[in-house]
Amino acid sequence: MPRIAIIGLGLIGGSIALALKRAQPEVEVAGFARTRETVQKARRLKAIDVAADSAADAVRGASLVVIASPILAKRAVFAEIADALEPGAVVTDVGSTKSRVMRWAKEILPAHAHFVGGHPMAGKEQAGIDAADADLFQDRPWVIVPSVDADEAAVNTVLGLAQVCGARPMFMDAEEHDSYVAAISHLPLVVASALFSVVFGSTAWPELAQLASSGFRDTTRLASGSPEMAHDIVRTNRDNVLHWIDRFAQELQRFRDVIASEEGEQILEAFLRAQVERDNYIESGPPRREASEQEFERVNFLANLLIGSKLASALQKQEQIIRDAEARAEGKDRKGRP
Amino acid sequence: MPRIAIIGLGLIGGSIALALKRAQPEVEVAGFARTRETVQKARRLKAIDVAADSAADAVRGASLVVIASPILAKRAVFAEIADALEPGAVVTDVGSTKSRVMRWAKEILPAHAHFVGGHPMAGKEQAGIDAADADLFQDRPWVIVPSVDADEAAVNTVLGLAQVCGARPMFMDAEEHDSYVAAISHLPLVVASALFSVVFGSTAWPELAQLASSGFRDTTRLASGSPEMAHDIVRTNRDNVLHWIDRFAQELQRFRDVIASEEGEQILEAFLRAQVERDNYIESGPPRREASEQEFERVNFLANLLIGSKLASALQKQEQIIRDAEARAEGKDRKGRP
Repeated sequence: MPRIAIIGLGLIGGSIALALKRAQPEVEVAGFARTRETVQKARRLKAIDVAADSAADAVRGASLVVIASPILAKRAVFAEIADALEPGAVVTDVGSTKSRVMRWAKEILPAHAHFVGGHPMAGKEQAGIDAADADLFQDRPWVIVPSVDADEAAVNTVLGLAQVCGARPMFMDAEEHDSYVAAISHLPLVVASALFSVVFGSTAWPELAQLASSGFRDTTRLASGSPEMAHDIVRTNRDNVLHWIDRFAQELQRFRDVIASEEGEQILEAFLRAQVERDNYIESGPPRREASEQEFERVNFLANLLIGSKLASALQKQEQIIRDAEARAEGKDRKGRP
Repeated sequence: MPRIAIIGLGLIGGSIALALKRAQPEVEVAGFARTRETVQKARRLKAIDVAADSAADAVRGASLVVIASPILAKRAVFAEIADALEPGAVVTDVGSTKSRVMRWAKEILPAHAHFVGGHPMAGKEQAGIDAADADLFQDRPWVIVPSVDADEAAVNTVLGLAQVCGARPMFMDAEEHDSYVAAISHLPLVVASALFSVVFGSTAWPELAQLASSGFRDTTRLASGSPEMAHDIVRTNRDNVLHWIDRFAQELQRFRDVIASEEGEQILEAFLRAQVERDNYIESGPPRREASEQEFERVNFLANLLIGSKLASALQKQEQIIRDAEARAEGKDRKGRP
């Protein structure tokens, strides 16, 4: 049976393990985490089959390795596993920023392994294996970041992993990814943290806290995320984060000026635009654009793991030829990775 | 049977009507709203017993009047009902800002009626009678703002209303209230609207929208509130709102500087402080302080409505004397309004 190794068994690593074992119980999942306690807990939760004694131990014999440790720890993990990786092994990760990680993978991992970056866009206020949940990725975006020279079968293995976890896969390059998540994920994190900090810092905090209701709670929710993760994010995506903080500060200033002006129509317009467009987005989902419509055929995840990267690649190409021929016969376009 | 009039049957007015009819079915609720359609809908939902033809019509014969119309419409509503108010009638409102409303009430309402400001701190993304919910105020703060010369029985009637709706009553003066809600309610509203606007305004919005997950959704939730309400809020609480926008902009700048510095410890500390204190607040609730521990004896709401303000006041005083005597006998302190 194929083996999958998961290094790091927190909320994300633990949830991937649970989702994998539910969808493919026949796959052997080996897990390693910084503390022995976490590994044992993952074993008790049946998230993993094998409690490994080291990262290198976990990846031996594994055809897929998922690195779910903090971003800044990944470099060391790559170094630890480099010599133990099987030929053809596929390595992926789940970090919130991608450029730095792709660079480390290229520098450190051996040429006989294939690295494909990943970022499942899901989270919770709670961290750790206790919060792990097999449904965490259901219908959530899972960004896949292949390097320019990525092996096609390796990319398909990671696509299969995202699909098996119930996520919505999207392909992107590392720079695109990092600039986008700075806007929709890292900026909200900084804003929520600054908002909570400034209100908490007031001498009237005891009274403010009595009055605060669901609005304050929701707007500041992201401030309760892991500070280590926030640290790693802003260290590895600094320029994009600063760029978006500056854009946001300008927009806040625009709202301030409009409010200070007491011009009724302008005030109404500022709030109305945000309301109408947000309601539209929440009700109808993201705007449709040909380029961003990414739909993928279902990958045979198990076959990919079993037959190894080279063979899978050949098989996949063969299947593709057949599918293309069928599609041509039916007069349909093939929808695939752009 | 006593009559309660509700002017304005949106989310808040409608929810108060539903909560009232559930708790005190014997009370007659008369309702009026800007559109005939809303009034008829409220009647079909059994939120009100009487569909009034005008605000003046609704308040005739009412011992309690709840004004749940938009803040800037209240002045006109006060003028419309002034001549129709019964002697001793208690008038309250539910507006998000209080100083301006208290001033209008003093100017416009007749001396034989008693105005006590109110602000139930509850809301939803949806507006209107269709979103009304008898449980909306359950365990939520309901701020009561008596004027300096407020009639004690009138204050108790409004306290009773908050209790009947399941809310947690708190007493405050209008200036205190407006400065506090600017921090925990109006600032988050402006921040959420500016955050949504700046991300939506990006040329990459179609891609950003595809990627955005629950974090972006929650942080921007308040942007989906009513633009009219946002307008009225920032028009009637301008200086407090500007003050808090400026404080927040400074805090955001502090986060920006720390992130730009790449000083690991400082970055970690900034996020850690927000996380620890927010988790503490979410888990343990607001910090306890003698002055803010407001617990109130349950008001006999129906009796207050029935016997009219003067008599109720005398009766309440008598009951208080007895309770105080009992408390002294048991060696306990009376907990009440500070």
